[in-house]
Amino acid sequence: MKTQVAIIGAGPSGLLLGQLLARQGIDNVILERRSGDYVLSRIRAGVLEQGTADLLREAGVAERMDSEGLPHTGFALAFGGQQIRVDLEELTGGKTVLVYGQTEVTRDLMAAREAIGATTCYEADDVQPHDLESDTPYVTFTHEGEQKRLDCDYIAGCDGFHGISRRCIPEDRLNIFEREYPIGWLGLLADTPPVDDELIYASHDRGFALCSMRSSSRSRYYIQVPDTEDADDWSDDAFWAELKRRLPEHVADKLVTGESIEKSVAPLRSFVAEPMQHGRLFLLGDAAHIVPPTGAKGLNLACSDVNTAYRLLTKVYRDNRTDLIPRYSETCLRRVWKSERFAWWMTTNLHTFSDNDNFLSRMQRAELDYYTSSRAGLTTIAENYVGLPFEALENDA
Amino acid sequence: MKTQVAIIGAGPSGLLLGQLLARQGIDNVILERRSGDYVLSRIRAGVLEQGTADLLREAGVAERMDSEGLPHTGFALAFGGQQIRVDLEELTGGKTVLVYGQTEVTRDLMAAREAIGATTCYEADDVQPHDLESDTPYVTFTHEGEQKRLDCDYIAGCDGFHGISRRCIPEDRLNIFEREYPIGWLGLLADTPPVDDELIYASHDRGFALCSMRSSSRSRYYIQVPDTEDADDWSDDAFWAELKRRLPEHVADKLVTGESIEKSVAPLRSFVAEPMQHGRLFLLGDAAHIVPPTGAKGLNLACSDVNTAYRLLTKVYRDNRTDLIPRYSETCLRRVWKSERFAWWMTTNLHTFSDNDNFLSRMQRAELDYYTSSRAGLTTIAENYVGLPFEALENDA
Repeated sequence: MKTQVAIIGAGPSGLLLGQLLARQGIDNVILERRSGDYVLSRIRAGVLEQGTADLLREAGVAERMDSEGLPHTGFALAFGGQQIRVDLEELTGGKTVLVYGQTEVTRDLMAAREAIGATTCYEADDVQPHDLESDTPYVTFTHEGEQKRLDCDYIAGCDGFHGISRRCIPEDRLNIFEREYPIGWLGLLADTPPVDDELIYASHDRGFALCSMRSSSRSRYYIQVPDTEDADDWSDDAFWAELKRRLPEHVADKLVTGESIEKSVAPLRSFVAEPMQHGRLFLLGDAAHIVPPTGAKGLNLACSDVNTAYRLLTKVYRDNRTDLIPRYSETCLRRVWKSERFAWWMTTNLHTFSDNDNFLSRMQRAELDYYTSSRAGLTTIAENYVGLPFEALENDA
Repeated sequence: MKTQVAIIGAGPSGLLLGQLLARQGIDNVILERRSGDYVLSRIRAGVLEQGTADLLREAGVAERMDSEGLPHTGFALAFGGQQIRVDLEELTGGKTVLVYGQTEVTRDLMAAREAIGATTCYEADDVQPHDLESDTPYVTFTHEGEQKRLDCDYIAGCDGFHGISRRCIPEDRLNIFEREYPIGWLGLLADTPPVDDELIYASHDRGFALCSMRSSSRSRYYIQVPDTEDADDWSDDAFWAELKRRLPEHVADKLVTGESIEKSVAPLRSFVAEPMQHGRLFLLGDAAHIVPPTGAKGLNLACSDVNTAYRLLTKVYRDNRTDLIPRYSETCLRRVWKSERFAWWMTTNLHTFSDNDNFLSRMQRAELDYYTSSRAGLTTIAENYVGLPFEALENDA
C-alpha cells in the first residue's frame, strides 16, 4: 500500500485531519487499532471552541453539528456562596462555544470519510512506523491476519497518550513536562434534562463539581474524588447526593436525577512532550499533550494541532513549502502551552487539594475573587474558554 | 494624658493616619519606640499607587511629592529574551504611579505633624495597650524615664510586623495565613543615574532582578539571592556583575555602576492576620499583613488601611456611626487579599525556585507569555500595579 499521509488513529483528530487533507486532494490512509464501534463508545468531552467548530465547517462535516449542537454564550462559576456568569459573547466580542459531544463529532467524521471512500483500516494490530528520518518512511501493521506495509511521505501520530507514535521518538530527543493531580473526576451520564441551560463549574469545600450536558435531554455531571476512587463503589444515589451538596442551593433544588447510563473515574493530568515532531512524524493531540479536563481544552487543542498540520501539509504539497516542516512543533507548542496554562489554572483554582496549606487555599479564593470581579480578569477567562486564536505557521499566514 | 485616637508607630501609616485625623479635628497622639532619625534611616519602597498619592494630597502633605516625585506611566517585564512594556496609563484609562521614596513620604509627614503641633512621643518604651474590649482603652509606656498612661477612645496599631499591637489580640481569635519564600532580595542603593526611565522587572534563569530608582540621580537595584545570604559577603563589584548577567543585554550595556550607599538582604514573605481588629484596637499595614516586595504593594496596602480607618473614625466622630466599627476588618481584608494575590503572583512567576519541577517552571513562563500577549492579561497586571480601587465601608460610600 502507498499513500501520501499515513494517519495513525481514527479518533477525532485523525479523522478530521484525513478529511481536511482529502478535500485538498492529499491522499491519506488511517490505521486504527480498535474497531469503529469501540472508538464511538468512548465517552469524551463536549464543548467545542469557536475555532474547532469553524474547522469542522471547513472540513464539510458540520451539518448535524450546526443543527443539533447547542450554542452557549456563557457559563457560570460558583464559589463562596456566589454564582458568577462569564458572558463569553459579550467579553470576547461575539465569540461563543458549541456543546456537541465528541462522540457525535467522531460519528459525523466517520460518515464523511465513508462517503468520500477514503481508506480506514480498523483493528490494525502491531502498528509500527519506520525510517522517520528518511524521505521514505513507512508503517507496518497486521490486518485481518496479514502483515502489511504502508509507504508514505509523512506520518501523523493521532493515536493518543498510550499510542506508539510518541514512543517512536528517541527518549533522549524528548523533553517531558508532567503533573499528576492527586484527584479524579467521577462522571455520570444520564438521560435527564440538564439542571441549567449553561455549564456550572462549582468550587466547594467538599470538592469541585461540574454540571455539563450533551444535549437538551442528556446530562453529564462530574464530582471531584480522590484518584484512588472506584466508580463501582458509587451508587447513583450516592453520586446525586454528593453532587447536590456541592452545588449552590438554588441549583441543587432543581436538579433532576435519574438512572446513570455510564459512570467512570477519569484521572487529572498535565503532560507535554517536546518536540512534537521527529523527522517525517508529526504528533497531534493526546499523543503529545494531555490537559486536565477543567475548561474543556483536550479535544480543542487536538483540533488546533490538526489545523497546523493541515495548513502545513497543504503548503508542502501545493507550493512545495518543505521549508515549513521544521516549524510544526514550535507553532503547535505556542498554543499548547497557553491551553495547558488555562487548564492548569482552572484545575488549580477550582479543586480542593489536601496538601494545600491555608495560605494557598486563600490564594485559590483570591484568584477566583479577583478574576471574577475585574472586567479584564473575566475577559482573560472568557477569551481562553472560547479558545485563543490558532497560531500561524508564518507571520503572513 | 488623654486623646481620642492613640496611634502606635510613627512610620508612614501612623503619621498619615494622624495627619488625616487631625485635619478633621480628631485629636491623636503617636507613640514610637524609636527615634525620628532612626525611622527616617529605614530604606523602604518607592512606588506610590495613584490612590496613595491622592490620599497624601488629601492629607495636605503632597507639595514636595508632586514637585520631586517621578510620574511613571509604565514599567517593563523582561523574560525569555523579550522586554515588554506594561503601559499603565493606556491600559487603565489614565492611571499612573509615582516614584517617590518612602523615606521622603515619612519626612514630609513628620514635618507636617510638627507644623500642626500634634504630639509624637519618640523613644517610647514598653508600649502596652490595655482594656481593648472596654469603652475606655488606654496605653501605658515609658518615656524619658517616666511611666505614662495615655487614655483614648481607639487605638491604631501601626507598629509593623514585630510590634506589640497584633500580639494584643488573643491567639485563639487570630487566623494566620503565611508563606515564607526560600529567597531574599539583595538591594543596593547608589547615587548613579537609573539605567532606564522606568522600572524593569527581569526574570532570568539565574534569578530575578529589578531596576528601580528613588530619583533621577539615585538608583535602587535588587537581585534575588538565597534567603540565607549575607549582604556583607557581596562586594559592590560582585553585585553589579551579577545584576548585569540577569538583565537584557541592551539594558546591561548602559548600566552605570558606582559605590553603594546601602546594601541589605530583605526576606520575602506573605502574611495575613485575620481579623484586623479586636475591640477598640485596629491593625494597619505591616502589623496585620506582609507582602513580598514584588509589585511594590507594601506601603500602598498600608495606606489603603489608613484610608479605611480614617473614613471610619471620621464617621464615628462626626456622625456617631459606631455601627460601622465592626466593618473595619472585613473592609480592609477585601483589598488586602487582592494585593496579597498580586504580590504572590508577581513573586511566584518572576523568581526562580529550586524546588519547582520542570512543569511548574514552564507554567511560570506560560503565565508570563499569556498575560503579556493578551490585552486583557496586560490589563490585569496594569490595574493591579496602579492599585485597585479602595474598598468602601458602605455600599453608598
